[in-house]
Amino acid sequence: MTAYAQQPPARVLGIDPGLTRCGLGVVEGVPGRPPKLVAVGVVRTDAAADIALRLLAIEQEIERWLDEHQPDTVAVERVFSQHNVRTVMGTAQAGAVAIVCAARRGLPVALHTPSEVKAAVTGNGRADKDQVTLMVSRLLRLTEAPRPADAADALALAICHLWRVPAIQARAAGAQRARVAGGTA
Amino acid sequence: MTAYAQQPPARVLGIDPGLTRCGLGVVEGVPGRPPKLVAVGVVRTDAAADIALRLLAIEQEIERWLDEHQPDTVAVERVFSQHNVRTVMGTAQAGAVAIVCAARRGLPVALHTPSEVKAAVTGNGRADKDQVTLMVSRLLRLTEAPRPADAADALALAICHLWRVPAIQARAAGAQRARVAGGTA
Repeated sequence: MTAYAQQPPARVLGIDPGLTRCGLGVVEGVPGRPPKLVAVGVVRTDAAADIALRLLAIEQEIERWLDEHQPDTVAVERVFSQHNVRTVMGTAQAGAVAIVCAARRGLPVALHTPSEVKAAVTGNGRADKDQVTLMVSRLLRLTEAPRPADAADALALAICHLWRVPAIQARAAGAQRARVAGGTA
Repeated sequence: MTAYAQQPPARVLGIDPGLTRCGLGVVEGVPGRPPKLVAVGVVRTDAAADIALRLLAIEQEIERWLDEHQPDTVAVERVFSQHNVRTVMGTAQAGAVAIVCAARRGLPVALHTPSEVKAAVTGNGRADKDQVTLMVSRLLRLTEAPRPADAADALALAICHLWRVPAIQARAAGAQRARVAGGTA
């Protein structure tokens, strides 16, 4: 039994931001153990609609999820500058709305890059969408794969956060202990 | 005297979005007449701070301006995909927060490109920052130029909206009348 298992379970809302499809997934668990699915879904907005109405619809739906599922933390995909600029803009806009919704409630917001998320759930930072969906389904013991891919990505983000952050904290604490022991802190 | 002058004065909040500096400017007036300055300022956030806290600070300041100045419309700079991708991301994030603040209150949100704004206030869509600042100062009869440039840009956006949108509407109405007169409507 690791020290991890002594922690109370944490509930994470993962958000894969996008204007046309914004994935939302809530998981609960402790690091190092299979997480539990709480909820998964996607907010869709009409590409022909006004940007103000699209962002407002995304905000309202995220607010509804925060009210209903009361997560401890929100994990949002870190926007990646390598992508197509038009896509990046929509992702940045929807992501900003998600970040502000969480910050207004005083919830911690964590950003993870797509490769961190892929590495966390599949062991490979360059895994494809199918692999991510497959591993998310396995880890959460789902009988059906979450669709669309944005929904699976949101769950992968939440699982990544649940597992990755305590691992980073444990490594940092270990390094800190080593420094203290070595007298170089 | 034009038909424009019969309209009641409109109050526009212009927002030049940015994470490090977000310009805010409120002007009031009717199309075709020199506008009046109501307020101008800039929200600054620390580049070293957490993105969630930066976006939250921008949201809180925009909310304060909306409460205090009660604009009829909010004009936001349309994010330009030609720019540096890193800058575009910050602009898109801050712009999304501005758009949602207005949309939540049911205020109309207008997006204008930098070249539309420059053309509206200087007559030249490729004018430089100094020309824009100079013309904004002249049009608003300011004894001192608004600083930083983001503050002047926010005022330019608000003036552009005040002047440009009724001109577009007037042209559209004229075209509509011409079609009706020609029996092709």
